[in-house]
Amino acid sequence: MKERLYLYDTTLRDGQQTQGVQFSTGEKLRIAAALDALGVDYIEGGWPGANPTDSAFFDEVGQTRARMTAFGMTKRAGRSAENDDVLAAVLNAGTGAVCLVGKSHDYHVTKALGVTLDENLENIRASMAHLVAQGREALFDAEHFFDGYKANPGYALDCLRVALDAGARWVVLCDTNGGALPHEIGQIVSDVIAAGIPGASLGIHTHNDTDNAVAGSLAAVLAGARQVQGTLNGLGERCGNANLVSLIPSLMLKEPFASQFETGVSLQALSGLRRISQMLDDILNRVPTKQAPYVGASAFAHKAGLHASAILKDPSTYEHIAPELVGNERIIPMSNQAGQSNLRKRLTEAGLQVEPGNPALARILDRVKERESEGYSYDTAQASFELLARDELGQLPDFFEVKRYRVTVERRKNKYNRMVSLSEAVVVVKVDGEKKLSVSESMDEEGCDRGPVNALSKALAKDLGPYQDVIDDMRLVDFKVRITQGGTEAVTRVTIDSEDGKGRRWSTVGVSANIVDASFEALLDAVRWKLVRDRGL
Amino acid sequence: MKERLYLYDTTLRDGQQTQGVQFSTGEKLRIAAALDALGVDYIEGGWPGANPTDSAFFDEVGQTRARMTAFGMTKRAGRSAENDDVLAAVLNAGTGAVCLVGKSHDYHVTKALGVTLDENLENIRASMAHLVAQGREALFDAEHFFDGYKANPGYALDCLRVALDAGARWVVLCDTNGGALPHEIGQIVSDVIAAGIPGASLGIHTHNDTDNAVAGSLAAVLAGARQVQGTLNGLGERCGNANLVSLIPSLMLKEPFASQFETGVSLQALSGLRRISQMLDDILNRVPTKQAPYVGASAFAHKAGLHASAILKDPSTYEHIAPELVGNERIIPMSNQAGQSNLRKRLTEAGLQVEPGNPALARILDRVKERESEGYSYDTAQASFELLARDELGQLPDFFEVKRYRVTVERRKNKYNRMVSLSEAVVVVKVDGEKKLSVSESMDEEGCDRGPVNALSKALAKDLGPYQDVIDDMRLVDFKVRITQGGTEAVTRVTIDSEDGKGRRWSTVGVSANIVDASFEALLDAVRWKLVRDRGL
Repeated sequence: MKERLYLYDTTLRDGQQTQGVQFSTGEKLRIAAALDALGVDYIEGGWPGANPTDSAFFDEVGQTRARMTAFGMTKRAGRSAENDDVLAAVLNAGTGAVCLVGKSHDYHVTKALGVTLDENLENIRASMAHLVAQGREALFDAEHFFDGYKANPGYALDCLRVALDAGARWVVLCDTNGGALPHEIGQIVSDVIAAGIPGASLGIHTHNDTDNAVAGSLAAVLAGARQVQGTLNGLGERCGNANLVSLIPSLMLKEPFASQFETGVSLQALSGLRRISQMLDDILNRVPTKQAPYVGASAFAHKAGLHASAILKDPSTYEHIAPELVGNERIIPMSNQAGQSNLRKRLTEAGLQVEPGNPALARILDRVKERESEGYSYDTAQASFELLARDELGQLPDFFEVKRYRVTVERRKNKYNRMVSLSEAVVVVKVDGEKKLSVSESMDEEGCDRGPVNALSKALAKDLGPYQDVIDDMRLVDFKVRITQGGTEAVTRVTIDSEDGKGRRWSTVGVSANIVDASFEALLDAVRWKLVRDRGL
Repeated sequence: MKERLYLYDTTLRDGQQTQGVQFSTGEKLRIAAALDALGVDYIEGGWPGANPTDSAFFDEVGQTRARMTAFGMTKRAGRSAENDDVLAAVLNAGTGAVCLVGKSHDYHVTKALGVTLDENLENIRASMAHLVAQGREALFDAEHFFDGYKANPGYALDCLRVALDAGARWVVLCDTNGGALPHEIGQIVSDVIAAGIPGASLGIHTHNDTDNAVAGSLAAVLAGARQVQGTLNGLGERCGNANLVSLIPSLMLKEPFASQFETGVSLQALSGLRRISQMLDDILNRVPTKQAPYVGASAFAHKAGLHASAILKDPSTYEHIAPELVGNERIIPMSNQAGQSNLRKRLTEAGLQVEPGNPALARILDRVKERESEGYSYDTAQASFELLARDELGQLPDFFEVKRYRVTVERRKNKYNRMVSLSEAVVVVKVDGEKKLSVSESMDEEGCDRGPVNALSKALAKDLGPYQDVIDDMRLVDFKVRITQGGTEAVTRVTIDSEDGKGRRWSTVGVSANIVDASFEALLDAVRWKLVRDRGL
């Protein structure tokens, strides 16, 4: 019989303390729906009354499987819980659970709050009792608990005891400043349980200021805590909160947790974890972190040649879990450290079956190596790699030929005597024996100059004759530039990510001393890859 | 008396296994110099023979305080250590220390290597003995040690024992797949020491696949290991290696480590940690991670109102360490007064004395804020910041005015029927009331196209009348491009580093949706700054 471990998400509250993050109500609703589908037990939605978006969220969120939780603080001294307007606003959100933060470090009680230690205990007691009297599940968030316990363990424990005695379901041990190391957290949680606070009532809330938030949470669970708080992608103030996207798979797949506990997350929901992580990045307009544990694009990427060949024999040789368990996938990138076995694997993934010993394999490797020495990088440009390989294998049609292009960038005064810039591009292609001239300028719908690459891209995509319908749904979603040597007289590598109407994404690369020419090369590859994929061969 | 803890950096070897990372020899030399100044004990420079850049690095690196280490693998079965060409290439790098990876997991020995367990032990023994016979400090990197120990503890221990018996200074326990959790690492390191392997000979090498690489390293040190391996910014294959930038401050500033150990890093070197972390991002053209523990821009940023007001009373209320210990700084929603004192400090650094209360200070702050919202970044472009401030202070002469420019990028067939590209730029400036037209093309001395920015730069610098002698010794030494939103329709930030005949270096920034225009803006600032500095005011 497994023990139940509870997951408490605070992306919408503590996660919003991240610098530069401010969710709209609609975004909060999307995130809450994803968390609910994932199977967390509690969704902390915000601080009603403190923030208009938070209040609106609670009004609109409706019924969830997870227990919706409002956050606030314990009543202030000098008034009753019933008469505290800040607390009343929190209760007005009508959530099934309410989590109130309060002090548990004696120094903070006297220094930051300026009340006596007994007054603080009474604030905690009365607040918890009030929540319970209102029929709510009550949680006490013990701020600075670990620092407080180190300074005055008796008082820190008293804060937990009054909360539990007043009917709190959970007391949550917060490492508010993020400075406690995992071994301290494990030890203090053990001490707290030995002092009579039941582990089944203990939550853990850590921050990542020493890069140990996940480890601190695991240490607390090993010591007996049964609720884990965290955020998606480790959002949160300063260095962020414990990352639930890292914690959940470890708790579900790794021992002793996997055998000892069950959570509200099913294995099927776990396989959607990567998508949820990416959805949050998408809302935040962030590029997903490639190196993110479990869900990053590089998490199962095997660059070293020795690793790649062993992976082909048995993936468990260099993978700690099967990537599909968290919705991720294995990548064996091309690089100058790769060998033929690595190469064949990569080709197979691109739908190209090549027999071992085919002389084209050596030619492809040589060409990759030569190009990488010129500044190309195929690790992150799989589509360009595939085109190169198809070319050597004789499987790349000449869809069209670019005869020439010209792009002009100008900056001068307009008729209102203001400096404006404008680019204009002419591209000449030959398709099915027919020469086509296309011209485009760099203005967007608002009349803003978007630069020479934009103008070239539009001119190239304007008229490709019979292929036009295939490329009409393409758009550029990211554009990266890297100068691989110092100075303007260095080589420029441009990597372009494209997307089509079906949501497919692919990456291409171009290299030149001329940044516009490098961009054009990557653009061309992007168009060619789409034609290969959609026109078949 | 403190015990010595050794730091082993593998940024240049395992760090280079990061997807998309390929250091040039020059970049490796810069990173090695920074690591040496920081005070790590070992710098693992690469795998000589496997990679031309690695071989070139060892040829050029010269004398360092840290022990330079070459990486390779134990000799293969069926030949002697003396006759193994791969091992010979590693030794040829001539480093004081050599670290050789070998198997310690029985399954990998038979499955991946296809040799007997005894043959593998002999490979380890003979390889270590050969290194020692050659007068090198020998390290054995025990691949898959934790998985191997779980499967067959006796054999895993035997691998360590033969290495030590053959004279290895260190045996390094590698969690190669990154799946071992910190409590397992702590337990197994304890078991290994209990089995007779001295902790003083044990190194720990972890990966971040479960977000626990730093915690796993700390657990190993607590259990008795005395060498910690990791990389700057946690670079490395898949999810990266243990991040030394997180580990070093925890080991130096947190208990029980701070009292028990000393490392080769001084407190003064520690205060340069943030700069080293940023230097690596700069080389990789990556935006520094704001939430990075200790060194991130958000690491000491206090967004919550409650926190910010307590911080003003006592920073220790919401900070686990003083930010300046790692070269970082506190960010709080500052009063205008506090913002101005920071600004005055920065202006003083640029040689501009401004009285407190000068209304220009508020205007400068507003303009910096506005520009940063448009995509500018003055953190890395001190010269552009100085020009902006001088402008508001009325201390920026109108040396010259750019009336207009035009640059053309063309690609077409030349007379030999080969595709060639060429750029041509015309810049029109007004100097001392006189209009000057300059034209330049993008060809260098070898007849190679160096692109539109080069052509513009040459045209701009061609004739600035009375200022010509001042700018003649200027040259561009680095050029970085960052797209701050996805798509070609995003804003481009160009940062240019310039150098003059006296070896001074300065950085300027330009922002535009048009990459050529952004470059031109940064070029203009570079010229203006040189004129301000050399013509005086």
